Amino acid sequence: MRWTFVNDAYYEEEKAVLKTGDLALQRGYAVFDYFRTSDSQPLFPDDYLDRFFNSASRLFITIPQTREQIKNAIDSLIEKNQIAGDSGIRMLATGGYSPDSYTPVRGNLIIQQHPVALPGKEKFEQGMKIVTHEYMRDFPEVKSINYLMGIWLQQQLKEKEADDVVYFRNNIISEFPRANIFIVTRDGKLATPAQHILHGITRKKVLQLAHEMLPVEKRDISVNELKNAAEVFMTSTTKRLLPVIAIDGNPVGNGKPGKVTRQLYEQFMAMELQYLHAAK
Amino acid sequence: MRWTFVNDAYYEEEKAVLKTGDLALQRGYAVFDYFRTSDSQPLFPDDYLDRFFNSASRLFITIPQTREQIKNAIDSLIEKNQIAGDSGIRMLATGGYSPDSYTPVRGNLIIQQHPVALPGKEKFEQGMKIVTHEYMRDFPEVKSINYLMGIWLQQQLKEKEADDVVYFRNNIISEFPRANIFIVTRDGKLATPAQHILHGITRKKVLQLAHEMLPVEKRDISVNELKNAAEVFMTSTTKRLLPVIAIDGNPVGNGKPGKVTRQLYEQFMAMELQYLHAAK
Repeated sequence: MRWTFVNDAYYEEEKAVLKTGDLALQRGYAVFDYFRTSDSQPLFPDDYLDRFFNSASRLFITIPQTREQIKNAIDSLIEKNQIAGDSGIRMLATGGYSPDSYTPVRGNLIIQQHPVALPGKEKFEQGMKIVTHEYMRDFPEVKSINYLMGIWLQQQLKEKEADDVVYFRNNIISEFPRANIFIVTRDGKLATPAQHILHGITRKKVLQLAHEMLPVEKRDISVNELKNAAEVFMTSTTKRLLPVIAIDGNPVGNGKPGKVTRQLYEQFMAMELQYLHAAK
Repeated sequence: MRWTFVNDAYYEEEKAVLKTGDLALQRGYAVFDYFRTSDSQPLFPDDYLDRFFNSASRLFITIPQTREQIKNAIDSLIEKNQIAGDSGIRMLATGGYSPDSYTPVRGNLIIQQHPVALPGKEKFEQGMKIVTHEYMRDFPEVKSINYLMGIWLQQQLKEKEADDVVYFRNNIISEFPRANIFIVTRDGKLATPAQHILHGITRKKVLQLAHEMLPVEKRDISVNELKNAAEVFMTSTTKRLLPVIAIDGNPVGNGKPGKVTRQLYEQFMAMELQYLHAAK
């Protein structure tokens, strides 16, 4: 049996509910965040909690608990659920039960935990085929629940036999619906968009690691530069690093995972293990 | 006691719930629609049902009931709730309980009914002060639950002592977060944006009425043309027609409700009464 935390108590997953008047349901008004655990050990939880509270604050959402209370609720949830291997913990704060169905009030908090399957070595070697699409999320720095475009595009991805889609606007790329993007330029620099993105935690860790290895630039990247990069990869909590091997039907580099991508992936895996070991 | 319909049964409002795994909560993925009743008599329900099914279809949302079943559920809900005077009925269809929290599956349907206070003569005479804001909704023709921007802007409206905000992009106006916009030009034509808008039912009825009265144009309108219009008004289900008397702090015309706006308002009131009378 799996448990979900709602506001102040733990419920069996099938009994964890919100009333239909909540502003998340009525107006899609809510923020969330999502981190991993490995054998019940949270990975970089403080980074995610920082971002969660920041998202809420940006949208005037009142999380009804303190950070300390949420940490305790997460610890108890992990203890109750006892999920071996990898899991994902999702914290969600809504606009609450708004009397006028429009104005945010005291929010509702949900914390869920599910087992998650991370991509293995095979998936890494296989790489990702992506397409480009003109779009920018509203409030890109905020992890809101608005995924209208990302979900709507799923149908097109199927038709194009693509694994994911990267957004651009005015010819400048930003991010995937649920991941950040990096390129390795032909002259050996690492670059990643600086603005109009969600500031990913995996992105942040990769940037830390990369600074030891090669020149790093946070700046605008055009669609054309993306398509002519030596290497391209994506980062996210559930994907770690995955090589992008084709864009709009054309291969990236020689169409195989690149050397820098592989080095950073290995370093990130080591960083993750080190963190989990130290936190025990 | 008020009742809410969820999927296949009626629940007391406080017990009408969705499980936390629903795609509306997880990803803001849902569509809705909203029509009025007057003394338990629905106003133009078929227009709204058409739009509801169209919104769902555009976002690959599977409404789990037929149109006939929904009509019956609405009739029963109205019968059970017995709300005198004006009420609003909200139909909402979500992306459902998606196993991967991302791919729409069989949707969940919610139908709610609440009393609603419509603006009276005083509110009409007082008029609306509005501001402009650069933005366009994703999928503007679809009545999705995404109101991130509209709700976020509430704080700014308060600070600016404005009643509402009209969106524009590339200098072309589109709509309010929850209403359509019309102008009367200085040479006596009625104009309203043709694209990047939700096609309002009140807008449609007003266009029908206006064709008998003055030349009508559905076309792009610049911010500048808006600000120099002889009259401006907004239309929505809960507002009917309301005059806009100031834009970004400057008066529209002489700063009072205009003649054409008043005539159309009176004609719309008559049309509404006639419909309700005929439908009895």
